[in-house]
Amino acid sequence: MKALFPYIRGYQKLAAKYGINDIFQDNGGKILQILLVTGLEALPGREGNDAIDKDGQEYELKSVNILLTQSFSTHHHMNPAIIAKYRLVPWIFAVYEGIELRKIYRLESSAMEHWYSMWETKWHDTGGKDINNPKIPLSYVERNGKIIFDFSMYPF
Amino acid sequence: MKALFPYIRGYQKLAAKYGINDIFQDNGGKILQILLVTGLEALPGREGNDAIDKDGQEYELKSVNILLTQSFSTHHHMNPAIIAKYRLVPWIFAVYEGIELRKIYRLESSAMEHWYSMWETKWHDTGGKDINNPKIPLSYVERNGKIIFDFSMYPF
Repeated sequence: MKALFPYIRGYQKLAAKYGINDIFQDNGGKILQILLVTGLEALPGREGNDAIDKDGQEYELKSVNILLTQSFSTHHHMNPAIIAKYRLVPWIFAVYEGIELRKIYRLESSAMEHWYSMWETKWHDTGGKDINNPKIPLSYVERNGKIIFDFSMYPF
Repeated sequence: MKALFPYIRGYQKLAAKYGINDIFQDNGGKILQILLVTGLEALPGREGNDAIDKDGQEYELKSVNILLTQSFSTHHHMNPAIIAKYRLVPWIFAVYEGIELRKIYRLESSAMEHWYSMWETKWHDTGGKDINNPKIPLSYVERNGKIIFDFSMYPF
């Protein structure tokens, strides 16, 4: 720990330059990699979208560790207000094996509409109860997304 | 990134030995520090309690970054079943400044009962609606906890 921690501090310092307060929470240390390879910038605060490009387009960022699960988490209280916000932006899905970034996919709003409609229907059908973290399978992302990063192109 | 990442891998490898799959999620990299300084072991899975000591006593682990907030998060769906589980274990509260571990407090179940009763009352009063992540202020932890680690005793 004593030998490694100075480098962890260095990594956090680099992350802070990219607007990441805490590498150990909410995938901070992974988001840093995503920002570095995509050229996106982080958006502060957890309520809004997660990243923005040079043209002002915002993105929702999600990541998955395929050693643990084969689907992406979304939101702990999914409801029509959240979905309305999601509809405005493309989604960026990052695929990790442990802490190693493997691939990044981009899904346009049209490719996400399948989920938005399903979640809205479910929300209304259950009397307006927020949906707890509905998942998006990696297989869906692979089939419907555009690959924008592959680790073989940019190995750390 | 290229200069730092080998050490990040080293840190993840150390963390894996302590049962932490991912240093960048759920405070994994911080929990590693907590385990190292307390001698506790991690319990796998997010549904149970979080750590266990040599005598088999389990603990709930929480951490806060005081640069971001002055209160601890608890559970996104607090309800009587979760509270019943919480009543069985002491809580360990770790206080961070950014990624730097500053202090660790231990609160016995008796010191936590104030919150358990309050959450139960609220849950029943609102017709059995799960409470979304009720907070525990750091000031409460400082007043009612026993300090079990201070960074000045063990600087990294």
